[in-house]
Amino acid sequence: MRKSIATVSVSGTLVEKLEAIAAAGFDGVEIFENDLLACPLPPEEIRARAADLGLGIDLYQPFRDFEGAPAELLPGNLRRAEHKFRLMERLGADLLLLCSNVSPAAVPGDDVAAGHLRLLAERAAEHGVRVAYEALAWGRHVNEYLHAWRLVRLADHPALGVCLDSFHILSRGSDPIGVEAIPGEKIFFLQLADAPRLAMDVLPWSRHYRCFPGQGTFDLAGLLAGVRRAGYAGPLSLEVFNDVFRQASAERTALDGMRSLIALEREVAGTAHPAVPTGFAFAELAGPGGLGGIPAALGFTRTGTHPGKPVELWEQGGARLLVNATGADPALIAVGLDSPDPAGAAGHAEELLSPILPRARTPEEAELNAVAAPDGTEIFFCDDGWLADFTPSRPPGTQPGLITGIDHVALTQPRHHFDEAALFYRSVLGLRPQESLEVPDPYGLLRSKAMSGPGGAVRVVVNVAQVGADHLPWQHVALACDDVVAVARRLRKEHPGLLLPIPGNYYDDLDARHEVDPELRGLGVLYDRDEHGGEFLHLYTVTVGRVFFELVQRIGGYQGYGAGNAAVRLAAQHAGHRQGVRPGPRPAGVTPAPL
Amino acid sequence: MRKSIATVSVSGTLVEKLEAIAAAGFDGVEIFENDLLACPLPPEEIRARAADLGLGIDLYQPFRDFEGAPAELLPGNLRRAEHKFRLMERLGADLLLLCSNVSPAAVPGDDVAAGHLRLLAERAAEHGVRVAYEALAWGRHVNEYLHAWRLVRLADHPALGVCLDSFHILSRGSDPIGVEAIPGEKIFFLQLADAPRLAMDVLPWSRHYRCFPGQGTFDLAGLLAGVRRAGYAGPLSLEVFNDVFRQASAERTALDGMRSLIALEREVAGTAHPAVPTGFAFAELAGPGGLGGIPAALGFTRTGTHPGKPVELWEQGGARLLVNATGADPALIAVGLDSPDPAGAAGHAEELLSPILPRARTPEEAELNAVAAPDGTEIFFCDDGWLADFTPSRPPGTQPGLITGIDHVALTQPRHHFDEAALFYRSVLGLRPQESLEVPDPYGLLRSKAMSGPGGAVRVVVNVAQVGADHLPWQHVALACDDVVAVARRLRKEHPGLLLPIPGNYYDDLDARHEVDPELRGLGVLYDRDEHGGEFLHLYTVTVGRVFFELVQRIGGYQGYGAGNAAVRLAAQHAGHRQGVRPGPRPAGVTPAPL
Repeated sequence: MRKSIATVSVSGTLVEKLEAIAAAGFDGVEIFENDLLACPLPPEEIRARAADLGLGIDLYQPFRDFEGAPAELLPGNLRRAEHKFRLMERLGADLLLLCSNVSPAAVPGDDVAAGHLRLLAERAAEHGVRVAYEALAWGRHVNEYLHAWRLVRLADHPALGVCLDSFHILSRGSDPIGVEAIPGEKIFFLQLADAPRLAMDVLPWSRHYRCFPGQGTFDLAGLLAGVRRAGYAGPLSLEVFNDVFRQASAERTALDGMRSLIALEREVAGTAHPAVPTGFAFAELAGPGGLGGIPAALGFTRTGTHPGKPVELWEQGGARLLVNATGADPALIAVGLDSPDPAGAAGHAEELLSPILPRARTPEEAELNAVAAPDGTEIFFCDDGWLADFTPSRPPGTQPGLITGIDHVALTQPRHHFDEAALFYRSVLGLRPQESLEVPDPYGLLRSKAMSGPGGAVRVVVNVAQVGADHLPWQHVALACDDVVAVARRLRKEHPGLLLPIPGNYYDDLDARHEVDPELRGLGVLYDRDEHGGEFLHLYTVTVGRVFFELVQRIGGYQGYGAGNAAVRLAAQHAGHRQGVRPGPRPAGVTPAPL
Repeated sequence: MRKSIATVSVSGTLVEKLEAIAAAGFDGVEIFENDLLACPLPPEEIRARAADLGLGIDLYQPFRDFEGAPAELLPGNLRRAEHKFRLMERLGADLLLLCSNVSPAAVPGDDVAAGHLRLLAERAAEHGVRVAYEALAWGRHVNEYLHAWRLVRLADHPALGVCLDSFHILSRGSDPIGVEAIPGEKIFFLQLADAPRLAMDVLPWSRHYRCFPGQGTFDLAGLLAGVRRAGYAGPLSLEVFNDVFRQASAERTALDGMRSLIALEREVAGTAHPAVPTGFAFAELAGPGGLGGIPAALGFTRTGTHPGKPVELWEQGGARLLVNATGADPALIAVGLDSPDPAGAAGHAEELLSPILPRARTPEEAELNAVAAPDGTEIFFCDDGWLADFTPSRPPGTQPGLITGIDHVALTQPRHHFDEAALFYRSVLGLRPQESLEVPDPYGLLRSKAMSGPGGAVRVVVNVAQVGADHLPWQHVALACDDVVAVARRLRKEHPGLLLPIPGNYYDDLDARHEVDPELRGLGVLYDRDEHGGEFLHLYTVTVGRVFFELVQRIGGYQGYGAGNAAVRLAAQHAGHRQGVRPGPRPAGVTPAPL
């Protein structure tokens, strides 16, 4: 379907907006009036600029406070409309968005409102303009989309139809099934916006928190499917505004919007995720100095080396780490995912506008299928072939240990890319949002969104750290383990400086809430319990560079991430950094050899 | 009265918080449990640290979900309470805050709840602890402060009283007059927080938007007066959390909190503003290069020079500008205010913890009474004496011209100091918040709070520009004028490069809305009309450095600032900067000599 976006959805001047929108591949735009008012170019030149960029002007918006106005305001309102119709002729726009009246002075009554709508449509038609009437969720008398449709039917003019806006429909909790009551040719326009579920009035919610489809919680695929069944064949148009977009790069925002529409179309078509990953193949860490010897200390065995690059393979149970000696500071740089169809998955990612990483390889190496995540982390889609790239330093076979695999990875995004990252992991990897949290940090706030695939085989936690600029964006790899206490006992004894110290006050509080094994206190193992009785035992290593490790043990179907303990963990990590615990190449007591 | 603050109100580790709180002069603290849990020091050491800093531990908080819990949870809840009582003994805290139960499992019924409260109080008393029971605004069954008091009276135990929290009372719209129904000795604690009026649920409103007294819209003076009439003699304690404080400096936040309590006490005592300024004496601009000749172009006359500093006095009507040749870039650096008692005003500011500027002067000069505003702008309290510091270059007497005075100044704050600035202008200068706005900027959002004194004699607009870091924080001086059109005519003719160009599209829209003088379009004069028929004509100069000038003409009692035109103005300013219009030392066609 044709794809459009409102100019208000991206930052910059009107010309900058048009350029960014065209570069992202959109077919058309909605010109937002305020963008036009602030533009030094006359409408004719804006029209020419859009045409040069290959953009149609699909809609001019908004026209406000018309239907149901008191009689004495009607002449002024018609005068206002005439001015806008003439402007639209200069601009080459033939569809005007009319929002339902929000004025306290508006009078109730469908007959009066429909009469006004008909009058407006008649005047519009004289200028070759059509009017798309939209029920704002906070309209004074008209705030339901079916009410707008009732008035349009009553007014009964060919130049009058409805505009459907997903936010205005779904934010009120209206059932979108009613859209199929509207003949497709009377749906003049469809605006799409998603939003997180927030406990606030619809007006500020709309003004500050709209996001692209797939970034919030609305069922936009369901709505779109209904609108298509109704026979709508016009553009899919994004109308999104929030405080983050206003300050972000127009080019990047426009591209993310386009990604959201492609993903939405695929979801409606049932072709959303041809190749959902089935597990973690590996996590690759930049590890100058061997990551402080932490893999060895955790019981990993070095099982291979790359013949052409300074990369080692370390294994334990089903967990594989690649330790890459390049890079200035330890960091999580890549994640490998088991894929039933690596090339298909990469192709799918590319169709969703993800940057494909270069495939330049030596002839002996396995083919690479990799894309860059929004924070720059490389995501590899793997079958078993990649292991053959490494020269074995041990006989093949699973390396025993208490660690069984990678449970999840946590990646910290810049604030401007948080929603983009959520959409990336959802649309490209097929993960679904699991829980969203805000965790107090001593120096700010950590926003966190956990996403997981079918059966929890792949879990990614997307974080944004709203802290001062002098704090590193931490990332971590969480390793699944059958007996965290046993690992902790060994580490406390053999590598006492490796584990993040947890305050005694935490355990006093834990004792007050639960009767738990008193040994946890001495070991620095944290504990959580969910409402179904599932339990979670976990511990953290100290941080090296940007990265740390977590060991997690899930008991009884626990699906969370120990969020209740995150504030204590963050404080301990900050304290470690401030006291210089940050261990440089190697924490005290850690030997580089495999255990 | 004794002054306290909850540790959650400032950023950092618990020890950093205590140090900042003590440095700001508080007498005590509420220890917030999560701060304690994350602290590596045992409770005894925290107690000692607080004592060393001169801080009492006035409260430990919060204890949750106790009263009205289902019977099967009671043993666990009592066990939890016993742990906390023992902790409080170690901590040296003897007052526990109990929040009303928010659990969906809580059972209704005052008798059950009161029975539980009595039981808790009995156990507390065995440890020398008292319990202050607070109705959370979102409590499951108890969410009104008088309901909490009813339960406390029913429970009837000397170790049980109420905690009053201004947010929980005023956010629900409860009438605070009922506090006088509570005997003062049963009000165990008083927590104070202000908040802006927001259309959202009380829980997220509380979590993210609380602010210090005087920074929001609640009538805290009225509440405090009632609580004192009830006989309460305990601490005034701040309990504030918002997303800005979490990332801000603990020292500065604590100091601002102390300022808010001092101002509140004065407001209750009726000694809030001994010396409210009566007008603008001057605006001082760093003007290397003579501010591009703008004062002269605007019709100002140079009337004096400072014998000891590179500062010129320029006058027109009642408006005085000081042009200070020091400084790297043009900026608004100081504001002089006419004061009936300059020394008293400065003393008042100092008592409100404002930084007093050094008074080092030569013997001939007038005495200086000046403080630094939160953004560093110097605020001078003046009588007429300061004019004698300048050597006249013209015979004394009002310099004629169309400009009559300074209408307002607009100062842009860093985001972290926006609320602090609002409190400063309110408590130190006696200005009252007039209107708060959010204006879209092409690259972000401008938040704006206009504040004005009695009769509009002093108006200050406090802005925060939420835009990318590469944008300058603009400031401006708005000059009052009897005939903006006449000034614009002259400027267009004599200094065509001086005025900010306003897009023709703006005037097309203005024509659609109002029938206004068509000459405005050619002159670049903007127009606004208020709902009472008041009119506003204004124009802007281009920006030099960080600063620009506005000329405003208020007609028919117009009290606003042309906010509807701000987005167009911001876009034009950005466009000017991007196209290199920024005129350096002098805009084209501007001569340095007085006209």
